[in-house]
Amino acid sequence: MFRKRHPAIGASPGTLMINSQARKPAIHVMKYKPDRLEEHDVDDVGKLRSLMDDESVCWIDVQGLGDEKVLRSLAAMFEIHRLALEDVVNVPQRPKVERFEEHTFCITRMARLVDEHIIDSEQVSIFLGSNFVLTFQERRGDVFDPVRSRLRQGGPVMRSSGSGYLAYALLDAVIDGYYPIMESFGEHLEALEAEIVADPKASILQKIHRVKRELLEVRRAIWPQREAINGLIRDENPFLSDTVRVYLRDCYDHCVQIMDVVETYRELAGGLMDVYLSSVGNRQNEVMKVLTIMASIFIPLTFLAGIYGMNFENMPELHATWGYPMLLATMVVVAAGMVVYFWHKGWIGPGRKPEGEEEP
Amino acid sequence: MFRKRHPAIGASPGTLMINSQARKPAIHVMKYKPDRLEEHDVDDVGKLRSLMDDESVCWIDVQGLGDEKVLRSLAAMFEIHRLALEDVVNVPQRPKVERFEEHTFCITRMARLVDEHIIDSEQVSIFLGSNFVLTFQERRGDVFDPVRSRLRQGGPVMRSSGSGYLAYALLDAVIDGYYPIMESFGEHLEALEAEIVADPKASILQKIHRVKRELLEVRRAIWPQREAINGLIRDENPFLSDTVRVYLRDCYDHCVQIMDVVETYRELAGGLMDVYLSSVGNRQNEVMKVLTIMASIFIPLTFLAGIYGMNFENMPELHATWGYPMLLATMVVVAAGMVVYFWHKGWIGPGRKPEGEEEP
Amino acid sequence: MFRKRHPAIGASPGTLMINSQARKPAIHVMKYKPDRLEEHDVDDVGKLRSLMDDESVCWIDVQGLGDEKVLRSLAAMFEIHRLALEDVVNVPQRPKVERFEEHTFCITRMARLVDEHIIDSEQVSIFLGSNFVLTFQERRGDVFDPVRSRLRQGGPVMRSSGSGYLAYALLDAVIDGYYPIMESFGEHLEALEAEIVADPKASILQKIHRVKRELLEVRRAIWPQREAINGLIRDENPFLSDTVRVYLRDCYDHCVQIMDVVETYRELAGGLMDVYLSSVGNRQNEVMKVLTIMASIFIPLTFLAGIYGMNFENMPELHATWGYPMLLATMVVVAAGMVVYFWHKGWIGPGRKPEGEEEP
Amino acid sequence: MFRKRHPAIGASPGTLMINSQARKPAIHVMKYKPDRLEEHDVDDVGKLRSLMDDESVCWIDVQGLGDEKVLRSLAAMFEIHRLALEDVVNVPQRPKVERFEEHTFCITRMARLVDEHIIDSEQVSIFLGSNFVLTFQERRGDVFDPVRSRLRQGGPVMRSSGSGYLAYALLDAVIDGYYPIMESFGEHLEALEAEIVADPKASILQKIHRVKRELLEVRRAIWPQREAINGLIRDENPFLSDTVRVYLRDCYDHCVQIMDVVETYRELAGGLMDVYLSSVGNRQNEVMKVLTIMASIFIPLTFLAGIYGMNFENMPELHATWGYPMLLATMVVVAAGMVVYFWHKGWIGPGRKPEGEEEP
Amino acid sequence: MFRKRHPAIGASPGTLMINSQARKPAIHVMKYKPDRLEEHDVDDVGKLRSLMDDESVCWIDVQGLGDEKVLRSLAAMFEIHRLALEDVVNVPQRPKVERFEEHTFCITRMARLVDEHIIDSEQVSIFLGSNFVLTFQERRGDVFDPVRSRLRQGGPVMRSSGSGYLAYALLDAVIDGYYPIMESFGEHLEALEAEIVADPKASILQKIHRVKRELLEVRRAIWPQREAINGLIRDENPFLSDTVRVYLRDCYDHCVQIMDVVETYRELAGGLMDVYLSSVGNRQNEVMKVLTIMASIFIPLTFLAGIYGMNFENMPELHATWGYPMLLATMVVVAAGMVVYFWHKGWIGPGRKPEGEEEP
Repeated sequence: MFRKRHPAIGASPGTLMINSQARKPAIHVMKYKPDRLEEHDVDDVGKLRSLMDDESVCWIDVQGLGDEKVLRSLAAMFEIHRLALEDVVNVPQRPKVERFEEHTFCITRMARLVDEHIIDSEQVSIFLGSNFVLTFQERRGDVFDPVRSRLRQGGPVMRSSGSGYLAYALLDAVIDGYYPIMESFGEHLEALEAEIVADPKASILQKIHRVKRELLEVRRAIWPQREAINGLIRDENPFLSDTVRVYLRDCYDHCVQIMDVVETYRELAGGLMDVYLSSVGNRQNEVMKVLTIMASIFIPLTFLAGIYGMNFENMPELHATWGYPMLLATMVVVAAGMVVYFWHKGWIGPGRKPEGEEEP
Repeated sequence: MFRKRHPAIGASPGTLMINSQARKPAIHVMKYKPDRLEEHDVDDVGKLRSLMDDESVCWIDVQGLGDEKVLRSLAAMFEIHRLALEDVVNVPQRPKVERFEEHTFCITRMARLVDEHIIDSEQVSIFLGSNFVLTFQERRGDVFDPVRSRLRQGGPVMRSSGSGYLAYALLDAVIDGYYPIMESFGEHLEALEAEIVADPKASILQKIHRVKRELLEVRRAIWPQREAINGLIRDENPFLSDTVRVYLRDCYDHCVQIMDVVETYRELAGGLMDVYLSSVGNRQNEVMKVLTIMASIFIPLTFLAGIYGMNFENMPELHATWGYPMLLATMVVVAAGMVVYFWHKGWIGPGRKPEGEEEP
Repeated sequence: MFRKRHPAIGASPGTLMINSQARKPAIHVMKYKPDRLEEHDVDDVGKLRSLMDDESVCWIDVQGLGDEKVLRSLAAMFEIHRLALEDVVNVPQRPKVERFEEHTFCITRMARLVDEHIIDSEQVSIFLGSNFVLTFQERRGDVFDPVRSRLRQGGPVMRSSGSGYLAYALLDAVIDGYYPIMESFGEHLEALEAEIVADPKASILQKIHRVKRELLEVRRAIWPQREAINGLIRDENPFLSDTVRVYLRDCYDHCVQIMDVVETYRELAGGLMDVYLSSVGNRQNEVMKVLTIMASIFIPLTFLAGIYGMNFENMPELHATWGYPMLLATMVVVAAGMVVYFWHKGWIGPGRKPEGEEEP
Repeated sequence: MFRKRHPAIGASPGTLMINSQARKPAIHVMKYKPDRLEEHDVDDVGKLRSLMDDESVCWIDVQGLGDEKVLRSLAAMFEIHRLALEDVVNVPQRPKVERFEEHTFCITRMARLVDEHIIDSEQVSIFLGSNFVLTFQERRGDVFDPVRSRLRQGGPVMRSSGSGYLAYALLDAVIDGYYPIMESFGEHLEALEAEIVADPKASILQKIHRVKRELLEVRRAIWPQREAINGLIRDENPFLSDTVRVYLRDCYDHCVQIMDVVETYRELAGGLMDVYLSSVGNRQNEVMKVLTIMASIFIPLTFLAGIYGMNFENMPELHATWGYPMLLATMVVVAAGMVVYFWHKGWIGPGRKPEGEEEP
Repeated sequence: MFRKRHPAIGASPGTLMINSQARKPAIHVMKYKPDRLEEHDVDDVGKLRSLMDDESVCWIDVQGLGDEKVLRSLAAMFEIHRLALEDVVNVPQRPKVERFEEHTFCITRMARLVDEHIIDSEQVSIFLGSNFVLTFQERRGDVFDPVRSRLRQGGPVMRSSGSGYLAYALLDAVIDGYYPIMESFGEHLEALEAEIVADPKASILQKIHRVKRELLEVRRAIWPQREAINGLIRDENPFLSDTVRVYLRDCYDHCVQIMDVVETYRELAGGLMDVYLSSVGNRQNEVMKVLTIMASIFIPLTFLAGIYGMNFENMPELHATWGYPMLLATMVVVAAGMVVYFWHKGWIGPGRKPEGEEEP
C-alpha cells in the first residue's frame, strides 16, 4: 500500500514510468459556452487542437495513463513541462499546486468508497488554462458525474463562469468525496466500540490498527490538499477570478473540517485501544479470580481429607462415630467461610456486578 | 455524534440540505434606539423590510431552519452569499468569521447543559451589518435571554452602542455558556477520582473515555471560535468600533481561559486513566497474593499428609504413639513459618496496610 | 481547584462577583520621593485623592475585594475600565498585560508555600500610572514585605526610579516567589523517588499524580506571565524607562528558568511513574515465582505420595523393606532437582540478587 | 553507529581528522561541452588546473579522503574555506548548504542498500562553481553512474545546461536513492506484521526496535537535506538558473515524499509494537486459562477422591456396593459441569475461536 | 541536582549570593599582539587596569567566585551592569547573550566528563569588549587549555584576529566539550542494550531513567546555547567581524549536531525501556508456563492416584493383578499427552527456541 513505483535512481528527470497494465487514455471533451455544450470523444490529439477556440471553455478529461505517445503529444499541445508530465504519470504524487506561465498545475487525490470500508484512491491531475481544464485520471470511474450533469443542464453559473469555476467544481467534488468515507469510518468506529463492550476479541486490536492506518493515509492525502488549495486562494492567479476565490475558500473550509474529523477519529481509535487493552486486563483478572477461588476453597479441604487419609495407628478421631460427619461439617464451614470472604471482597456473586452491570 | 450531513458529492455549491424534521423558521425582531425598543414577531419577509430604518438597530433572530423559501427570501433581502447561506443551513459548520461587503458573517457554536453531563450544542450564525444583526439558530431555546433583558431594560450602553456591540453581547453569551459546562466537567472528574480511589470498577474506564471524547468536542468547538474572534479584533471592520474591540478582547480572553481549562481537564482525565489502570494492576496483584498464600501454605501440608497416607508396610512412624500429634505439630510449625514469611514480605496483615492505610 | 466563579451567562460586561465572605478592602499608601517616605492607612477614597501629587510616587495597595462601593470609587478615581475592574474582582483571571491610555494594567498570580507542599495562590492586579502603582490583592499576606523594606530603607535606586521601577520590583517579587515552590517540588520528587526504590506502595501513584497536577497548575500560572512580561518589554510603554526594561528582561529570564524547571519536573514525575509501574510488575513477578516454586516442588512429591497411598493389592514396593526410605530419598532428589533448576534460572537464592542487590 | 569522530576539544578550527585507514583520493574528471566530453583520471592537482577552461564544465569527482596533502592542494586551488574543508573531511556532518563567494558548498548524505536491510550511508560534499562541480566522497561506489551515462550519451539538456544542472542531477540521484530503501523498509514492516499475526516471538520486538532506530536515522539524514534544498531554491544563487530551480523544486518534492513515508512507517512500527504487546498479553491469558481450567476441573475431583481415601471407621458410603460407581458418576458430572461452565465463558472450544478464527 | 540557589524573594536586584565555600578568585591575564604574548597572574584589580592597552587583546580569566569585593571592583572597571554581575555570581543561569554598550555578555555552560558517566558542569560567563575578553569560571579546571596553547604557539590566525575570534575559540571549546560526553552516553546506551538482551534485571530501568534525566539536562544546557550563538551571528555586533561570524556558524552547526544526538539518544533510551518492559513480560510468561506445565501434568495424575487411594470396598481394579501396572501405564500416557500438547503449543522444548535462539 505504501510502496511507490519510482524511476531508476539518477534517471533523467521527466522519465515516465508507463505501467504496462494501465488503461489506454480515453479523451472526452466537453466544450461549452453559456448557451451551448458539445461533447466529443477524441482519439486524435490533432483533432483536439481544432476543437478548441477562444470563446468556449473546454474540459479535456483523459482517463487512463497507459500510452506514452498520446500523453507526450498532449503535453506538447498544452506546453506541459516535462516534470509536470512526470508527476501526472508517475503516480502517486503528493497533492500540490504549481504555477506555470501557460497554466496552473494541480495534483489532487480522489478517494471513493468502493465497498464497505474499502477505499479506492486515485490521483487526478488538473491543468487550468485560460480557456481549458485538462484532467488526467488513472482509471475510469470518478466522482465527477454530478459536475458533468450540471454542465449539461447548463445552470447559469456553471457554464458562464469560465475555466476557473470548472476547476473549482472538480476540486470541490474531490474534497466532498471524503465525506462519505469519513462517515463510513465513523460507523466502523461505533461498531468497533459496541463490539469491545460486548465481546472484546483479540482480532479487534488489528481492526483498530487497520482503521488507524487508513486514517493516517487519509490524513496524508488531505493535508497537502489543504495547503494546495490555500496556495490557489492566496496566489495572484490570472485564471481564478475573485468570485471563484470565494468558492475556493468554501472548499478550503471543507478540507479543514475533514482534517478535524480525521484527527478526532484518530484520537477515538486510540481511546478504543485503551478500552480494549483494559478489558483484556479485566478478563485476565477474571481468569485469575476463578483460579484463586477454586484453589483457595478446595486446597484446604483436600488437606483436611488428606489428614484423615493417613494411616497412623493412633488417630482417635478415626474411630469416633461422629468423626466423619463432623469433618464434613467442618469442611462445609471452611468452604462457606472462603465463599463469604470472596463474596466480601466482591470476587463472586455481587462482586461481578460492579464490573458489568453497574451502569444502569 | 461525529457524523455530518453533507450534500451529494459534486452538488452545485449553495445547495441547501433542509432537514424535513427541522422547525419552521420563527422570526423575532427587536428594533431599538437609545430611547425606545419595539419587538415584533414577523412571519413575512416583506414586512421585515418595512420595519428596518437607518436610525434604529434591528436584531432579527431566526429560530429554525426548516423552510427553504423563507431562508432564501431572507438571503435575498440581506444580500447573503449563497455559500454563506449554505453554511447557515448545512449545519454543523466549523466556527469562523467571513467578511462580505454588506455584512460580516460569523459562525459560532452555542453549547448548553441540558441535563447533568448532557451537552446540547447548536450552531448560531450571526450576520452583522451597519444597522442590523441577523442571527440564525437551529432550534428554539438559547443562551440569549439575558441579552434580551438587557435590551428591554435599556441600560445606557446596550441600546446606544450600535449593532457591533449587540453582536459582541451575543458572542459573549455564547462563550460564557461554556463556563457551566466546564464546571460540570470538573465536578464529574472529581467524582470519578473519588470513585477510582474508593472502588475502581471496570466501567470507570469507559466513563473517562467518554469525558475525554466530550472534552475533545468542546475543544473542536472552542478552538476555531478563538481564531474567529481574534480575526474580528484584528481586521479592519467598519461595523466594529474601537470600543467594541476592547470588549471583544475580553471575550477572546474568556475563550483562552476555557481552552486552558479544557487542556487541563484532558491531562487530568489522562492521569485518572493511569491511576485506574494501576489500581487494576494492584487488585490483580492482590488476587495473586491470595492464591499464592493459600497454595504455599496448604500444598506442603497436603504433601505431608500424603506421606503418611502411604501404605508401605515398613513405616515406623505410623505405629509410634506420638506420630500423629507430632506430625500435626510439624504441620502447625510449617504453616506458621509460611505465615511469618508472608507477613515478613508484607503480603498479609500489616503487609496490606502499606497499600491502603498508609496515608493518614 | 479548577472551578471558576463566573458571572451569569449573558450578564452585562463589567458585572462584579463580590464574594460575600471576602475581606473588606484595606488601603495602604506608601508615598515617596527620593528623600522622603510617608505611609498612610486610608479608609476614604476621597482622602486618597488629596494625598497624591505629581512629585511623589504613590503605591496604593488594596488588600481584600469585599466591598463593591470602595472598588467602584477607586475605579472612578483612577479611570479604570469596567472590564479591567471585572478582571480585578472576578478572580482568578489569566495573567496578562493590557494598555489603557492612563495606565497599564497587569494581572499576575502570586504563589506562596503556606505549609509543606501546600501552595496558596492569589491574584495580584497591578495598575501602573505615571505617578502611582495601584495593586489589588485578594487577601492579606503577600510576598511584598522585602519591597516595602527597601522603600523604607530608601536605597538610592528604589525611591528615585519612578513608578515603573516599583511595578518591576513587585512583579519580580511575585516571580521570585516561585523559586521556593519549585525547590519544594524538587525535594518532594526526590523523596518520592527514594520511597519508590525502598518500598513501592500503591499510594505513591496518587502522590505522583498530585505532583503532576500541581506542576500543571504552576505552568498555567507561569506561562502567561512570561508572555505578559515579554509584552511589557516589547511595547512602547510611556511608564517604563529603558533602564526598567533591562530589569524586566532579568525578570523575564527568571520566568523562563522556572518554566524550564517545571518542564523538567514534569518529565521527572513521568519517569517516576514508569519506575513505579515497573516495580509493581516486578513484585507481581516475585509473587508468581513463589507460587510457581512452591507448586512445582510439592505437586510432584504429592503425586508420588499419592501413588503409594493407593490400595492396589499387587504393589510389590509397599512390601519391600526399603520401599519407604527409597521413596523418601527419591522425593529428596526430585525436590533438590527442582531447587537446582530454579536456582539455575535465577529464581531463588542468587537469583533474587540480580533484582535487588546488584547495584553496590 | 551514532558515535562521531571529533577533533580534540579546543583544536584550531579547520583541523582535519584524516582516518589512517581511509582510501587515498582518486580524482576523476569529466569535462564537457554540448558537443564533446572528455574523461581524465588525474593524480596531480596541478594537471587538474590546466584541464579547466571557461567554455567547458568540469565535474571533478574525488573518491576517498585519505590524503591531507591532496585535499589541501585541492582546497587551495578552489579557494575552499578551511571550515568547509573540515566539514568535507571530518564526516559525518549534518546536510546543509553554505554560500561562499566563489562557489556554493553543499553537504548531502548518500544512502544505498548494500544487502537486504543493510544501509550503507556516506557523506557527499558538493562544491558548485560557475564552470565546475567538485564532489568529495568517502569511499568508492556511489549512486551517480546513471548521471555519468547521461553525460556520456550527451542528451541535449544534460551537457548544455551548465554546472547548476549537473549539481541538481547529483542531488536528485542522492535523494532518489532513498526510494529503494523506503521500499525495503515497507517490505520489512509487512513481513514483521505477518510474523506477528502468525507467531509473535519475543525477538520481534527487537526487530521492530531496530527498524524504528533505522527510520530515525533516515529521518535525521533527510530532514536537513530538505531544508538545504529549500535554501538552494530560495536563495539568490548565481550558479543556479531559474530552469534549474524548477528541477530543484521537483527534487524538494521527492524529499518531502520520503519524509512522509518515513513518518508513516514510524507510526506503523509503533502500531506493530502495540499489536505485538497485545498478542503477548493474549498468549499469557491463554497460559492462564489452561492452568485455570486444569486446576478447576481436577482440584474438586481430587478433593472428592481424598474424602473417600479417609480412614474413618464410620463411613457408610465405603461399604455400599454402588458407592464407587456413583462417586465416579458424580465426578464425571462435576467435570462436565466445569467444562460446560468454561465453554460458556468461551475459554475452551468455541471460546478459542473468537480469538483466532473469527476473521474469515 | 535541580535545586537552584536563589536570593531572598523581593531582594534588591543585583544582590550577590556569594557561596562561603567558593574559591577566591584567581585572575590570570594573557595579553597578546600578533608578535608577542605576555602572561600575568594578577591579584590587584588596579594593576589589571595598567596592563591593558589599545594595541593588545587581553584575556582576563577569573577562576573562582568567592570574593565579592574583587568581583565588584572588576565590575566597576569593566562597567558591568549589576544584573549581569548577578548572573555571573548567582549560578546556574540559563545560557544567553546580552548586548551592552561597552561589551557583549554571554553565559555558557561548560561540561566535562570527570569520571565515567559523571558530568561536571560549570557556568562560564564571557564578556567580550573591543580589546578584551573577560571570563568568569566557578572553579579551577576547564576545557580551555588547548586555546591557551594556541595563543602561546602564536598561530597567525589566533593572535591577529582580535577579541572576537578569542571569544569564538572559547565558545567553540565549550561546545566541543559536549562531544566526548555524548560519546560516553552512546557507549553507556550500547552497554545497557547488551545487558537487557543478556539479562534484564530490575535495576536497568533505573539506569535508563538516570540516562534519560541526564540527557534532559544536557538538552537544557545546549538548547539555549544554540539560541545564544544564533543571536551572536545575527545581531549587528561591533566586536564580531564577518570572518568570525563564519566561524560562529560552524560552532552553531556543532550545537545543532549535539542537539540531534541528544534527541536520538532520548528516543533510543525510550526504546530500550520498551524492550526491557517487554522482556520482563516475557519472563513473567515463562514463570507462568512453568507453573502451568507442572500443574497441568501432575494434577490429573494426582487425581488418578487419589481415585485408587479410596477405601471403597467394591473397587474391582484394586484386586486385579494388572491394575497397578496398567494405572502406571495410563499415567505415563496422560503425562506424555500433556507434554506433547505443550510441545505442540511451543511452551516446552522447541517452544522455547522461538523466543531465544531464532535469530541466527
